[in-house]
Amino acid sequence: MLLEAIYHRPRMNWSYAYDENTIHLRLRSKKGDLTEAYAWAGDKYAWDRTKELIPMTLLTSDSMFDYWECESVPPYRRLKYGFLLLQGDEQIWMTENGYQEEQPANPNRLFEFPYLNLSDVFAPPAWVKDTVFYQIFPERFANGDPSLDPEDAEPWGAAPTPENFFGGDLQGVIDHLDHLSELGITGIYFTPIFAATTNHKYDTEDYLRVDPQFGDTETLKRLVGECHKRGIRVLLDAVFNHSGRTFAPFVDVLENGEDSRYKDWFHVRSFPLEIEDDVPTYDTFAFEPKMPKLNTQNPEVKKYLLEVAEYWIKEVGIDGWRLDVASEVSHEFWRDFRRVVKQANPEAYILGEIWHESAPWLEGDQFDAVMNYPFTDAVIDFFVRGDLDAAGFANSIGRQFSRYSMQVNEAAFNLLDSHDTARLLTLCDGNKQKFKQAVAFQFTYMGAPCIYYGSEFGMDGGEDPGCRKCMVWEPELQDRDMFRFYQDLIRIRGNHEALRKGSIRFLEAAVKGSKLAYERRLGDEAILVLMNTGDCGQSFRLPVQEQEWENLLTGEKLRTDRGVLHAKLPSYGYAILKARTL
Amino acid sequence: MLLEAIYHRPRMNWSYAYDENTIHLRLRSKKGDLTEAYAWAGDKYAWDRTKELIPMTLLTSDSMFDYWECESVPPYRRLKYGFLLLQGDEQIWMTENGYQEEQPANPNRLFEFPYLNLSDVFAPPAWVKDTVFYQIFPERFANGDPSLDPEDAEPWGAAPTPENFFGGDLQGVIDHLDHLSELGITGIYFTPIFAATTNHKYDTEDYLRVDPQFGDTETLKRLVGECHKRGIRVLLDAVFNHSGRTFAPFVDVLENGEDSRYKDWFHVRSFPLEIEDDVPTYDTFAFEPKMPKLNTQNPEVKKYLLEVAEYWIKEVGIDGWRLDVASEVSHEFWRDFRRVVKQANPEAYILGEIWHESAPWLEGDQFDAVMNYPFTDAVIDFFVRGDLDAAGFANSIGRQFSRYSMQVNEAAFNLLDSHDTARLLTLCDGNKQKFKQAVAFQFTYMGAPCIYYGSEFGMDGGEDPGCRKCMVWEPELQDRDMFRFYQDLIRIRGNHEALRKGSIRFLEAAVKGSKLAYERRLGDEAILVLMNTGDCGQSFRLPVQEQEWENLLTGEKLRTDRGVLHAKLPSYGYAILKARTL
Repeated sequence: MLLEAIYHRPRMNWSYAYDENTIHLRLRSKKGDLTEAYAWAGDKYAWDRTKELIPMTLLTSDSMFDYWECESVPPYRRLKYGFLLLQGDEQIWMTENGYQEEQPANPNRLFEFPYLNLSDVFAPPAWVKDTVFYQIFPERFANGDPSLDPEDAEPWGAAPTPENFFGGDLQGVIDHLDHLSELGITGIYFTPIFAATTNHKYDTEDYLRVDPQFGDTETLKRLVGECHKRGIRVLLDAVFNHSGRTFAPFVDVLENGEDSRYKDWFHVRSFPLEIEDDVPTYDTFAFEPKMPKLNTQNPEVKKYLLEVAEYWIKEVGIDGWRLDVASEVSHEFWRDFRRVVKQANPEAYILGEIWHESAPWLEGDQFDAVMNYPFTDAVIDFFVRGDLDAAGFANSIGRQFSRYSMQVNEAAFNLLDSHDTARLLTLCDGNKQKFKQAVAFQFTYMGAPCIYYGSEFGMDGGEDPGCRKCMVWEPELQDRDMFRFYQDLIRIRGNHEALRKGSIRFLEAAVKGSKLAYERRLGDEAILVLMNTGDCGQSFRLPVQEQEWENLLTGEKLRTDRGVLHAKLPSYGYAILKARTL
Repeated sequence: MLLEAIYHRPRMNWSYAYDENTIHLRLRSKKGDLTEAYAWAGDKYAWDRTKELIPMTLLTSDSMFDYWECESVPPYRRLKYGFLLLQGDEQIWMTENGYQEEQPANPNRLFEFPYLNLSDVFAPPAWVKDTVFYQIFPERFANGDPSLDPEDAEPWGAAPTPENFFGGDLQGVIDHLDHLSELGITGIYFTPIFAATTNHKYDTEDYLRVDPQFGDTETLKRLVGECHKRGIRVLLDAVFNHSGRTFAPFVDVLENGEDSRYKDWFHVRSFPLEIEDDVPTYDTFAFEPKMPKLNTQNPEVKKYLLEVAEYWIKEVGIDGWRLDVASEVSHEFWRDFRRVVKQANPEAYILGEIWHESAPWLEGDQFDAVMNYPFTDAVIDFFVRGDLDAAGFANSIGRQFSRYSMQVNEAAFNLLDSHDTARLLTLCDGNKQKFKQAVAFQFTYMGAPCIYYGSEFGMDGGEDPGCRKCMVWEPELQDRDMFRFYQDLIRIRGNHEALRKGSIRFLEAAVKGSKLAYERRLGDEAILVLMNTGDCGQSFRLPVQEQEWENLLTGEKLRTDRGVLHAKLPSYGYAILKARTL
């Protein structure tokens, strides 16, 4: 037994409350090293009559480790615990102090989950895991009110540049809600809609005013109301890390320097405000002079921004906030933000923009989810670039899955592209078969998928500005097959809870392999997904429990032969099979 | 290189802000496996001109692992980082995604410390690490006002029982502050002093009233004032996990059951309140019916308790709170508690009673420290019981040290006994030589030591009630040698910052060994501590950097011989040596 590989801490993904009654415990071991693992757990004040060995099951694996998990429902909400690890005949007990061959004589030096307090249970909104999101970049989605167009607006569909405008607005979104309902999405994430100078609006001028090019508060209210009528929830983008250069307090600092009453609203390192060797004398987003970093440690700034957060929830009824550059704002600010937002709407979704591992923000006191770019990377590395083989992909997904609590995995925001990346189809060099496989994975994995506007019609585009092209509304330019493909996936996902909440296990993911097979299970429901990412047809032979299977995309029936399911997929083929047990 | 042993997460002890400019990064590896380790770090928006390899040094070790640490002062407060690990010629790069032999082409998939925000820096009060605490159990320290004695008070010094009283009070403490100043302590932690029925007062009846057996608010004010005049800070005990049975809201629930307006102040599982098979129908501390658990999730209860916390800081000027059964109260409550307490007194010390690993409470948003019982256990296992050899002790200390950030280690509350344990001298079977070695370790290790009342006079006593005997005020019963021993240690600790803030390295700690030698260093200051826990004399040969050393307890001078310090210690001997470089 490789003890150096074992890991557990009474914290984070290793030990957490899953719901008001249930504690999850996890343990890491060297891949393939343990034959069994148990938590040895009980109430510290009634150890003898409550202690038990709880079998752990293999939650997931990566290239080096297995991750074991079990759950406990402690009768008095208190849990003292250690672990019993087995490798064949060898057995080792793990306590907070280390390892020993003998069973500990008493629970004194075991790990502890002292008390499961309801107010510490991290519960992201329940609706999120059942939602399919759709991201809209408002300036480029649809022009519903030409009277609001900027003077220099270009004709819809012309080439986008970092600076140009096309006149997209909120009325345009309202006009096309039927399209979104037909597609089947149930949530929209809007990039910023508040007054700002750029086309992307990430340089806020006025946090309390809808950008006049997009409409006004009344338009926004109508939009949110119409969405809600259709069962579509709405997220807005909170750009609280920095303001725009034209934000009144910053203008005041520019004009009055050290005498400005707003000088502590920003992080000014030295006056006058200027740029030396491309580095502003005040903190900014990156080194962008037009995006001065807000000093959220200043109580006045905090109060202002929290009022903004609350205002739009109460005034127009939005269902959550996406937080721009979230990881660079203080944890303290986000804790207060969560309190204010959840008080205004307990079901609001708080979604941070973070591109790297996000454990510090996903423990219940700050965000409900982050934009899951590590997921994006893994999918692109395998399905698109071929930088990962099937084993590498399964390992990457397994590693990510192991890092977070189950409720975080369930409420993850899984995207494949956005206004900040090239579009997936462009990364695929236009290969729609590759594209569809990646999307099929997105929709059959845990976490809420998000479709970047236009993907449903096969839109392409490189990095900004290419990915911000105008939405294609001419029917002859829309890929209707792609639209039906998304409809199918959304329907299948919606009909099968196992795809949203079930366990995941890779059945086929070989080193150098281009075949992928994984199983999602929840209760009696079992779904099997097969993908062939290679450039010739390949066969699968999968030992599975159930005899009868149905391809949910084609209706085709399959039967196992002596416990083995045989299936053949063409190059870039994929299949979503459902066990016909019931 | 054993990659399975490597560990880093961008969180907890592995990656944290040490102060407003400095980030600490840590990495775990198999013991003795790496020859060098580097952090590869820079600003993500200016990677090429800021990236650097920062050498990591060995922070500490335990039986299986080495823990490496480095610090970074990122110019723009942002840090993207990976690690370069070396074993002789072999080198491996570690990113957020795993390991690779090639240097990553870009920083995209490295770990990230996105922004060092001042409001996220965990800064326990600076005074704590320079403080020597003294714990007083008020009913047993001194009787300064016999008019307050309970009717059934027994003569001072009679045998303590779990229920009896002796008349100790706050005036008694005031009367003996000169004793404490002569000893040299600079902080007092009082077990509860608010109105309650028991002698220990952990069953609060009235959180806003000093127990009339102890005095009143005016007495407490005088006590705190007198302490402050002497440079002694005062901690009170906040018993917020549960109240006493006579707490008015609980009495109301007992009397009115489901109709009580206070029924949601507690966790009542079913009415009527009764005890079935030794388990109350309401949650309690352990299964103790007299200590009903408070429902701190109820905003009314929270408000009440937070007002109590604030009241005593503002009303009498206390310097902090010790929190009873702290780990069973919700994290959410403690976050609000911290906010209220630090607002009332930014320098207040928040000290939780937690007996096990306490990382979830020691990340800046809740406590400043916990009562460090794992430290107690290790010291007793080695110096007293001999259950650990010197290697086992050094490993246990190393493991504990690795678990927390440096500021947490500096502000730890290191005790050897308390009202909840047998007294150390009794665990030592009265062997004062063993006792002194344990105490000498306590005073030469990082973290604030705490003396349990009477230890300075050699008081003994088993578990409750033995450890709660009346303080010995008859001079002929006081061990004056022990008093001078404590005075010496307090003076030496006070004079040498290396003992309070310096690095620690074990130079001698062998398997099956009974010799211990460790070095504390800070800047130019170097202290070397030697202990012989064996029952015969033993010699040390220690390679050390400095030539001239002085025994701080005896004044004896020592010189190295060709870089090696020779020293001999009698059975149970100890020496604290200081390098005479300056």
